Formats: sequence, C-alpha cells, structure tokens
Amino acid sequence: MGRTSDAREKILAAAQGLIESRGYSALGVADICKAAGVPKGSFYYFFDSKEALALEVLDEHWRIQRGDWERILGGDAEPLQRLRQLFEETEAGLRAGQQSCGTVSGCMFGNLTLEMSNQTAPIRERLQTIFEAQVEMVEKVVVQAQARGEVAVADVNEAARSVVAQLEGQVLFAKLYNNTGRLDTLWRNGLALLGIRELESATTA
Amino acid sequence: MGRTSDAREKILAAAQGLIESRGYSALGVADICKAAGVPKGSFYYFFDSKEALALEVLDEHWRIQRGDWERILGGDAEPLQRLRQLFEETEAGLRAGQQSCGTVSGCMFGNLTLEMSNQTAPIRERLQTIFEAQVEMVEKVVVQAQARGEVAVADVNEAARSVVAQLEGQVLFAKLYNNTGRLDTLWRNGLALLGIRELESATTA
Repeated sequence: MGRTSDAREKILAAAQGLIESRGYSALGVADICKAAGVPKGSFYYFFDSKEALALEVLDEHWRIQRGDWERILGGDAEPLQRLRQLFEETEAGLRAGQQSCGTVSGCMFGNLTLEMSNQTAPIRERLQTIFEAQVEMVEKVVVQAQARGEVAVADVNEAARSVVAQLEGQVLFAKLYNNTGRLDTLWRNGLALLGIRELESATTA
Repeated sequence: MGRTSDAREKILAAAQGLIESRGYSALGVADICKAAGVPKGSFYYFFDSKEALALEVLDEHWRIQRGDWERILGGDAEPLQRLRQLFEETEAGLRAGQQSCGTVSGCMFGNLTLEMSNQTAPIRERLQTIFEAQVEMVEKVVVQAQARGEVAVADVNEAARSVVAQLEGQVLFAKLYNNTGRLDTLWRNGLALLGIRELESATTA
C-alpha cells in the first residue's frame, strides 16, 4: 500500500469503474479492494460502508459531469445550440466509454436509480439532488430560448424534466443495443418536447 | 414441499417479486428459495441457474404485460386515445404496486436493462426482443393515426421508439421520486414526439 491518500483514491477509482460496469449490488468490498490493489483491511479505514463509498463515487462522478454540463449549457452559443451540444457530447462520451470497455455502460445515475433508488434512502436522496440539478440546468437554457421566442411550452420545468427523461430513456436503449447511435434522435425529440414548431429552421440555425 | 409443479410456480412467483423490489444481482438462490418456501435443493431440479430463472421471470412478466398492451393498443378506441390509455394504465399499475409494497418499483424490463444488459448476453437479447415488441405495438398505432392524418412524423419506427424511451425515462423519475404523478406528462409529451401540432384538439378529442 502506498501513502494512505493513494489508497483512498485507488479505492474510489476502482469503485467507479466497477459500479459503471457491474452496478452496485453485484460488488463486494473484496472485489473493490482487489481491483484497487489495496488490502481489504484498509477499506474501512477510509469508508464506513460500501454505501458510503457509493455516495462518494456519485459525488465525484457528478462533480466532473456537472463541470461538463456547466461548460456546455453556460456557454456562448445560442441556447438551443447549447442543448444540442449537450446531446452530442453525451453521445460522444458514451461512445468513448464503449470503445474503451467494449460496451455502452450507460448513465451511472440512471443505472443506480433503477437498481437502487427504492432500496436505500441516502442513495435515493443523492440521485434526486443530482437529477434536480440537471433539470435546473436544462431549464435555464429553456428559459433563455423562451425569452428569444424560440420555444413554446406552458411549463418550463416540466419541459426540462421531459428533456432529461428522454435523454435517460434513449441512453437506456443505447445500453440495451450497445449502440450509441440511439442518441441521434435526442436533438429532434428535444425540439419536439420544447414545442418548437419550425423544426427545420431550428436545426439549421 | 408440495407437488413439484407447485414448487416451480412458487419459485417463479418469489423470484418475480424479489427481482422487482431488489433487482437481480442482489439476489441469491437461497433468498429466492426462502421467499418461495421451498428447500434450496429443489431449485436446481427446476432451473439450470439463476440466469435461467430470470429469463423465465422476464418471459412470464412480458406474457402478462403483452396481453395488456394488446388489449389496449388493439382496442376499438381511436388510435391516439389507445396510446393515452396505455399511459394511464401504466401509471395506474405502478400506483397499485406502490400501494402494495410502499415504493414505485418501476419497469422490470427497464430495471434489468440498466442493471444487467451489458453483463449477460441472454438477458440482453431477451430484453431487446421485449422492447422491440413494445416499439412495434406502438408503431402500429402511430401508423393508424398517420393514416387518419393525425400525426406528422418522418420515421414512424423512430417516433415509436421515442415514445417508449420517454415512457422509460419518466418511469425512472417515478421510481426516483416514488411518485407516479411523474407519468402525467406522458400524454402531452407523446403528442409532441409524434409531431402533433394541434395539441388542444387532440387532447380533447
């Protein structure tokens, strides 16, 4: 074992990879330590439980993804083009993951929601916070597009939730078919969900 | 243990309930046999493996759900109203499950797709077959609505897939928030995804 800080980081990195590829329930602390190359005894020095580790993995994964979302959705492009860029970068990220591990592992937050959210309150609450933040970020862009007269929706929060739901639904199909091309429809569907009538002008804007 | 046919049915019923509430990986054969009230030794008399059992659970769950979908989507109502009825009955089914077990367990097919589809080929293939059948059933209704001039989509198969993806995405949120009200948006979003411009006339038809 290296310095203790190394061991902690190694456990986190190994857990992230294993949770992405195999989910949460399938993992034992022994598997995680083996993948991390640290003695099993050191696990409980750093983490109270597997659940505590999973919460940290979620936080770290969201810290990085939130940075990406802020960069894209808070950028200088026109509002709807930022949304388009989010879809394209999500697809590119899944494709890169597929190339490195052979399969589309999907969205860690969606995966753990369907696997775990009805079983442990702390994980459910953390996932709720993350998805709320995603919806809020999309909603800001929708509000900006609305101010430009580009979208026509009665309830911007509901519309933003529907865009994120559609994203999760198509990522589910991308994982099922191991085909990131399933995400090609996100832009067209996103426009439809935002009540955009003039599809052609919006897509070529 | 009762008659062998009883034991087999008991194992299947117990596995279905446990997979719905806890997923696949978290379950051991011993848990299933305990819940079924059958001796562990009898499991391998009926099933080659936990995976073989899971495939039978999927088949049985789909046999019942397919019957519901055929009844609704093949009914006498106008095409779009059948789609609306599918959304409403899906929400009612999730609500009934929530009332009986305390939490929204979601869609078993979506749950296992995100938990397992990248890990075992037989489960992935079975889930692909089920979702293909769902999309095909929705597509038939979309084609009928298109023949009546009610929908405007370039690709009916893609539109049907997007409707099913949106359903899965909103069921994910229903599970995350333990709130079936999340599915109230399915009808409005379904119309949007089908390119229906005259939302009000369609919703009040």
